[in-house]
Amino acid sequence: MHLQAYTREQLLTRSRQLEEQYRAFQAGGLDLDLTRGKPSIAQLALSSPLDGILKGDYRLADGTDSRGYGGLDGIPEARDLAAEWLGVRPAEVLVGGNSSLTLMYLFMLSAHFLGLQGAESAWRGQAGGASFLCPVPGYDRHFAICEELGIAMHPVPMNADGPDMDIVESKVAADTSIKGIWCVPRFSNPTGAVYSDQVVRRLAKLPGRSGGGLFLFWDNAYAVHAFDSAPVPLYNLMDECRIQGTQDQVVLFGSTSKVSFAGAGLAFMGASVDTLNAFRQHLAVSTIGPDKVNQLRHVRFLPDMNAVRELMQRHAALLRPKFQCVQNRLREGLEGCGMGRWTDPAGGYFVSFDALPGLAARIIARAAQAGVKLTPAGAAFPYGKDPEDRNIRLAPSYPEVDDVDRATQVFVCCVQLCSVEQRLKELDTSN
Amino acid sequence: MHLQAYTREQLLTRSRQLEEQYRAFQAGGLDLDLTRGKPSIAQLALSSPLDGILKGDYRLADGTDSRGYGGLDGIPEARDLAAEWLGVRPAEVLVGGNSSLTLMYLFMLSAHFLGLQGAESAWRGQAGGASFLCPVPGYDRHFAICEELGIAMHPVPMNADGPDMDIVESKVAADTSIKGIWCVPRFSNPTGAVYSDQVVRRLAKLPGRSGGGLFLFWDNAYAVHAFDSAPVPLYNLMDECRIQGTQDQVVLFGSTSKVSFAGAGLAFMGASVDTLNAFRQHLAVSTIGPDKVNQLRHVRFLPDMNAVRELMQRHAALLRPKFQCVQNRLREGLEGCGMGRWTDPAGGYFVSFDALPGLAARIIARAAQAGVKLTPAGAAFPYGKDPEDRNIRLAPSYPEVDDVDRATQVFVCCVQLCSVEQRLKELDTSN
Repeated sequence: MHLQAYTREQLLTRSRQLEEQYRAFQAGGLDLDLTRGKPSIAQLALSSPLDGILKGDYRLADGTDSRGYGGLDGIPEARDLAAEWLGVRPAEVLVGGNSSLTLMYLFMLSAHFLGLQGAESAWRGQAGGASFLCPVPGYDRHFAICEELGIAMHPVPMNADGPDMDIVESKVAADTSIKGIWCVPRFSNPTGAVYSDQVVRRLAKLPGRSGGGLFLFWDNAYAVHAFDSAPVPLYNLMDECRIQGTQDQVVLFGSTSKVSFAGAGLAFMGASVDTLNAFRQHLAVSTIGPDKVNQLRHVRFLPDMNAVRELMQRHAALLRPKFQCVQNRLREGLEGCGMGRWTDPAGGYFVSFDALPGLAARIIARAAQAGVKLTPAGAAFPYGKDPEDRNIRLAPSYPEVDDVDRATQVFVCCVQLCSVEQRLKELDTSN
Repeated sequence: MHLQAYTREQLLTRSRQLEEQYRAFQAGGLDLDLTRGKPSIAQLALSSPLDGILKGDYRLADGTDSRGYGGLDGIPEARDLAAEWLGVRPAEVLVGGNSSLTLMYLFMLSAHFLGLQGAESAWRGQAGGASFLCPVPGYDRHFAICEELGIAMHPVPMNADGPDMDIVESKVAADTSIKGIWCVPRFSNPTGAVYSDQVVRRLAKLPGRSGGGLFLFWDNAYAVHAFDSAPVPLYNLMDECRIQGTQDQVVLFGSTSKVSFAGAGLAFMGASVDTLNAFRQHLAVSTIGPDKVNQLRHVRFLPDMNAVRELMQRHAALLRPKFQCVQNRLREGLEGCGMGRWTDPAGGYFVSFDALPGLAARIIARAAQAGVKLTPAGAAFPYGKDPEDRNIRLAPSYPEVDDVDRATQVFVCCVQLCSVEQRLKELDTSN
């Protein structure tokens, strides 16, 4: 039954039922955590053969000893794999340490403080300052980098097929302080949206703006993270940028953090040869080079994209039931109720839930008091502020299915309870 | 015979002999590389058990799964080890990725651009700018960080017991733009000097300067790298800083790059709890945390400092003959000749050679033409410029002993040849 259809009397009854249900959850002493997109222990175990896989043979195909110093770009075998992964050429790839976030941070830092084309080109020194477009809801750690470096953020709404390109284009045309846009093009964090061909094509044109280019930050964190084996196509950004002549203004990122080990995988970035060269000059100052031994382990374990896809099917088998469970509980408890809407992604790590405006923080607090930790309200927005206080990110990957089920039940109860309470208040105010 | 004692005739004869010897080396088709302080393949092999050491058990002592996300500070086991290594408390240590250079860079960056105590405290914004004291000859990659970030450098002469503290103190008293000093306190790169107690004590007082503190950058890269088992004592800097009340103004660094795998070891830093907390706020933005799996491998392989010291004895057994060979050839060819002086370190990775002024670049070029690559002239000085053009860094760790022997013979021949040629020119000019 739709929330708006309830009489005041019915709402009061429903409210009492829900409070009783809620108290029962509280009495259950739950301690569940749906805050972060973390692979479960079972998922991590899929890659356990990594340690020991070298069997004493630390040499690369070209004879280099992986244990020694050197090799800013990473090992050739890993660059080949990463190039196919990101849809660029091997010469357009650099494989780093265990964190793609670090590569993003260092690239951003180089462009902002140091300049990719000499000190004069640094964003920081430019009149009007530097700002970024941030599709929302988005990934909190992208926004944290902007905040840390003092780069202003302009939120842009996310649609089911990517950022709202009309708004993006008009902002870019009007404001040359905009130096980049954050994109998670496949199974976007948190909505799960996959960018449409049309959106990718329009994005590829952006850096051609008169008044100076901007960078497309293409964080393809969930490039191979579909829930079933049917491929979810994504238009090749670099190819399209080459057509548009904007290939020097795109940086692509990926990692095996949710493929092998979350904290001990490989991170990589793609960019044109010229852009990579510009970045290398800064990167070289800050490191002795990446851990080549771990890169070698990874290419022995995952020699090609077929091996990656096979492994990802095993991940999918573990993740699917958890996401299905969330969908089932949400549908069962909230479908047609007018208490919120949510995404049903075909991959990735999140479900994005939009409650009625003004209720997200309240729902999250209620859930916490019943033993279910959710991502803090506003986390998916710049500066942690959701202007409508309605977005909630659900991350069901880590707990066991039974716990996901219990946690989602609690969540649904909290949504219902807060929605009914708010509707009652509305009725009281309007009377 | 001393160079100054030769007659012109004798010099001409000697020059002809040396040219003949040099041409013979050239005809030998050598291809030797003494440029960088790299562990040899045999040294790397000492740590080969690292891959596979976990035997499927990825759990830390506290039950945490090392494969997952999280843990900005590194794993507790590794922090305990690093604390003893650096001479600080476990709460004063953070274990990072594979590169201590990255930790130095990120700390410097945070202090310079972002501010450790809020944006106002950033060095960059301060009147008079930021500068560093650089004991010379020193480590090129330290100086590269300063150059990259636009931090001016003031060279300070290195003595056998550390930097010339009279000069250091007078510069620090006179110039509040000085924000730090680079120190490699044990087996300094490249002279091999070990800082005396007196120097450490005077350094510990520096940050107490009126007009604002400066940071001691304490890169203890060769903390456990002695050539024999007799310990080479080094006064504990952090303890002394605590006595002086300057404990918040020191950052200590170390790594296993020349203990386990050069490119796949552990890097760590030490600092007071307050300083670490200030740094963590910036560090947290740039990473998902270090590779805990590799940290766990390392503590299984090196559970305590006794294990480290045992391993280092095996390294020493491989390094000693190479350094002895260099000393033998230098003594044999150059002792009492007035053609240069050199260090005879008790540990570390380098021998520092001072040729007659004006000859370093020439000697290095000559050696290269005979197939022996040496570190570029000036590398051990800020901006790569040795004002006297006399310092040459010899790095004999990587090649086999026979090759070190051949390379040092070539080097000695080049020193002799260039010195004799120069002496001849002097005589011609004075006549």
